[in-house]
Amino acid sequence: MRIKGNLIVISGPSGSGKGTVCKAMFASMTDLHLSTSATTRKQRVGEQDGVDYYFLSRPEFESMIAEEQLLEWANVYGQYYGTPVEPVLNAVNRGQDVILEIDVQGAFKVRKKFPTCVLIFLIPPSRSALEKRLKNRATDSDEEIERRLKWAESEIQQVEYYDYLIINDEVEKAADKVVNIINAERCRPALLDIESLMQKYR
Amino acid sequence: MRIKGNLIVISGPSGSGKGTVCKAMFASMTDLHLSTSATTRKQRVGEQDGVDYYFLSRPEFESMIAEEQLLEWANVYGQYYGTPVEPVLNAVNRGQDVILEIDVQGAFKVRKKFPTCVLIFLIPPSRSALEKRLKNRATDSDEEIERRLKWAESEIQQVEYYDYLIINDEVEKAADKVVNIINAERCRPALLDIESLMQKYR
Repeated sequence: MRIKGNLIVISGPSGSGKGTVCKAMFASMTDLHLSTSATTRKQRVGEQDGVDYYFLSRPEFESMIAEEQLLEWANVYGQYYGTPVEPVLNAVNRGQDVILEIDVQGAFKVRKKFPTCVLIFLIPPSRSALEKRLKNRATDSDEEIERRLKWAESEIQQVEYYDYLIINDEVEKAADKVVNIINAERCRPALLDIESLMQKYR
Repeated sequence: MRIKGNLIVISGPSGSGKGTVCKAMFASMTDLHLSTSATTRKQRVGEQDGVDYYFLSRPEFESMIAEEQLLEWANVYGQYYGTPVEPVLNAVNRGQDVILEIDVQGAFKVRKKFPTCVLIFLIPPSRSALEKRLKNRATDSDEEIERRLKWAESEIQQVEYYDYLIINDEVEKAADKVVNIINAERCRPALLDIESLMQKYR
């Protein structure tokens, strides 16, 4: 079966700059579909259902798990987070590339269910650079930051299982690299209509 | 063993526009190494030894075959053509990407000897577009053109073995796609110094 669009997974440790790089990338590529996660955590002021997240009740989320309607999911501190599979498949089937911005464990779950996905690992150039980012965003305690840094160290060990590695030194450069990768992956024979090309050569 | 540079093979039927696309691509990427072929055919006026080709005698070429100093070679109408392996390895080992512009049969021979190479298939959008190109360059008889068109039809059947397919509709667009592919392939974990990245996270 021909795939029509690519599923591009942008992943990396907490604080790697996934969100910022994605935002910069979306500025130059407007034809992408950004996947929206589902969650059971409370909707915050200013957040829109279906835009920031799909806000679900616990039974709703658990029935999605049971019916395998999630590409990946995790329970983080008692709240569920996951990627609904249907919007992803719809976009891919109409030939749109889908961007999934998720953590490292989620990325490998997606690879398992969707082996043709493209895995991009994003990481700051060093532990101290990552530490600086985590401190700057000021959302975590020192203990939590230390835990995240240790986690990052172990996540890098998995980088060989990724298709691409981007050292996030400068946001614009990193975003350009993602754009290059997306454009390159659009040239995969599996994605193109080889049958109709062959017909044009008969 | 870590690869330091990529070997990028740009291939496609005779008349696909490989040379024109490569020229356009070299205008925007100056840090590439273009592989120079060796041949036993006579040096023409204006051609430089070591630039257009390495011009070799028949015994010189045959000793290179015997000593496995060629990445691929072929005998075309009684003249040898081939790719000396040493300059390719030297460039790759110093971290430079190498561009090889060769025919489809050569491309598969390179893949066999150098499995990590990147294969790009370039092809005009249709048989009639290819025919027009072949007629425009006015180097082949009608019979030869017909033979090349049939050949192209069979070469397209192999496209699934390529890493990338580029429909050469407009030279600039096709060259941009090659540039995207080269930049994307530079983000492969196998090409990057993961060991030193890991050290920066200890």
